[in-house]
Amino acid sequence: MRVSTIPKNDGFWMPGEFEEHKECWMLWPYRPDIWRCGGVYAQKTFAEVANAISKFEPVTVGVMPAYFDDARKKLRPEIRVVEFQYCDAWIRDSGPTFIKNSTGMLRGIDWSFNAWGGFNGGAYTNWDLDDKVASRILEIERVDSYRTDFFVLEGGSIHVDGEGTLLTTKQCLLNPNRNPELTQGDIEAYLKDYLNVSKIIWLEEGLFNDETDGHIDNICCFARPGEVILSWTDDKTHPSYPMCQAAYDILKKEVDAKGRALKVHKLELPTPIQITEEINEQIIASGESIKFEAGELLPASYVNFLFVNKGIILPVFKDEKDSIAIKTMQQIFPERSIVAIDSREIILGGGNIHCITQQQPKPNDFMEVSK
Amino acid sequence: MRVSTIPKNDGFWMPGEFEEHKECWMLWPYRPDIWRCGGVYAQKTFAEVANAISKFEPVTVGVMPAYFDDARKKLRPEIRVVEFQYCDAWIRDSGPTFIKNSTGMLRGIDWSFNAWGGFNGGAYTNWDLDDKVASRILEIERVDSYRTDFFVLEGGSIHVDGEGTLLTTKQCLLNPNRNPELTQGDIEAYLKDYLNVSKIIWLEEGLFNDETDGHIDNICCFARPGEVILSWTDDKTHPSYPMCQAAYDILKKEVDAKGRALKVHKLELPTPIQITEEINEQIIASGESIKFEAGELLPASYVNFLFVNKGIILPVFKDEKDSIAIKTMQQIFPERSIVAIDSREIILGGGNIHCITQQQPKPNDFMEVSK
Repeated sequence: MRVSTIPKNDGFWMPGEFEEHKECWMLWPYRPDIWRCGGVYAQKTFAEVANAISKFEPVTVGVMPAYFDDARKKLRPEIRVVEFQYCDAWIRDSGPTFIKNSTGMLRGIDWSFNAWGGFNGGAYTNWDLDDKVASRILEIERVDSYRTDFFVLEGGSIHVDGEGTLLTTKQCLLNPNRNPELTQGDIEAYLKDYLNVSKIIWLEEGLFNDETDGHIDNICCFARPGEVILSWTDDKTHPSYPMCQAAYDILKKEVDAKGRALKVHKLELPTPIQITEEINEQIIASGESIKFEAGELLPASYVNFLFVNKGIILPVFKDEKDSIAIKTMQQIFPERSIVAIDSREIILGGGNIHCITQQQPKPNDFMEVSK
Repeated sequence: MRVSTIPKNDGFWMPGEFEEHKECWMLWPYRPDIWRCGGVYAQKTFAEVANAISKFEPVTVGVMPAYFDDARKKLRPEIRVVEFQYCDAWIRDSGPTFIKNSTGMLRGIDWSFNAWGGFNGGAYTNWDLDDKVASRILEIERVDSYRTDFFVLEGGSIHVDGEGTLLTTKQCLLNPNRNPELTQGDIEAYLKDYLNVSKIIWLEEGLFNDETDGHIDNICCFARPGEVILSWTDDKTHPSYPMCQAAYDILKKEVDAKGRALKVHKLELPTPIQITEEINEQIIASGESIKFEAGELLPASYVNFLFVNKGIILPVFKDEKDSIAIKTMQQIFPERSIVAIDSREIILGGGNIHCITQQQPKPNDFMEVSK
């Protein structure tokens, strides 16, 4: 059911992704104008991601009816598969942001969604079904929802530490193609009201050529309260070099909501992936979605990983930097298993493992979710 | 997940419908070749039924995507609405039969479904989506399933007392359009294995002109162990008079699985409802479904009611017999609230409230459903 109050006033907050999950949600890719060869390779990789996550925590995959039987066969029997309608598979951005309170309840935020910019730079021309994904998921889970008809936000554009601090980028949240009528102050007020944070750390921009207008989840995330992981390169010719430097300078000067200076872990970027002519020809031009051009660089990043219970699902790229990333991540998270998955088929769509997943946190204690 | 063993061997049985429910499932009607005026009147009545049930127990309604927003508006906010694909809305017959064990687990039986007779008298020519309804529901609920690829059965063709006794009709279960290769003995063996019953009471046939080939749930049901409710008429000109008499004779001679003689409550039938020319013209002839003819009698029955927690949802027909039915039911069930709903729009499709609902029993204790 819809709740028309304000999460903060109701005592709800967004926990850190690194906290315990009840479940993880995904959607099955199928668009031939976004995924090459009608989606068959992306489907294989998505199945690999879902199957990997399901060894750590329960998984539900929403699937367009025509693909249900095939998805069911490719996914482990433990995974729940449900029929779903959606434009594309970026559930991090179209899905709900789950929030919890101290007495064992979960609720969800159903942000307005406009496909990363609507008719002013958005990824496709019709996003009606995507804008309904959050409410559908919350309804299946019988979790009450807050809807922000007046505020556009994607889940990939924010990260929180669960202790009052939020990380984001001005490039995305202050972009006139999201909430043109709101000032930075208005936007901060919404974030504080809905996610129950008290401190917002604004980076200037995300990685080079990130078609989401610089989502935070490709450049920087929390490892745990007081510690962030930043995409990094010492190579001045890397197109994301200036963004990483600028982000580092801000992070080193900032303190979090608890007044702590941030420990910044640098995670070296992979070599940018280039769209080849051959791949370009395997993606149809439908006129309904934007399309990378042959030769264009994709914003590959190891920071776009997913936390799962006791583990990390890490995107890798058959790149020479993969082994450095795995080693760095294992050093940051000695207590977690690192599962590396070749994610080149996902990055072709512009995002990665974090963008195609949405965690549902475990409520605070063993009481049943309210209804 | 699918389980390939036998429910009886696993310690599972089907509880009586009068036992406590966790939930009730429905599907939203939409076929213009079955419901008049594109389904708008049936939708209104289905909403009334769902809204009534939801005051007694949780309800989930599956809805074809194109009708989702309209259904959501017509249903109480407490009702869960999920997107679903299905041919028609008779979830009693296409849905799963839920079974439970003594340690708090639920499982479901996913019977083969052939639209009440396949190409030999079935109601429509394509039933693929209906045959998937049970597995989809079980997957949403994360309840393990038994699938009978080899055995066709509809939920409306059986009633159980939860203590080892099953009621059914030969007209339906022994009809060559269901399981032509199975003998009566084979069918009894399946029922005993899957529903964990030890005694099967066979009536000869159901009500006059019941297009399901005489489903039990229109003529007779259990009120509680040891007591049945039988559709009845003393009017020798009523087309169902001989069926009611024959059923009574059998029931008075039978004993149940516990050796008890059955108490038979007679519930007087309504006046049969006739399809008018006007209504016939409001239902399109698609060539994909059978169609009642103008002048044909519909098998209206008060026995096609639904048990809900502490209540009964009773179909009525703006008929002079309605008040007798309500009075009789309140006498049989002094402990339950009787909610009467004008069901004339449902009976136009050939069934009634019991046919469009499917209860999910409450597991035996407070342990979480396995998975």
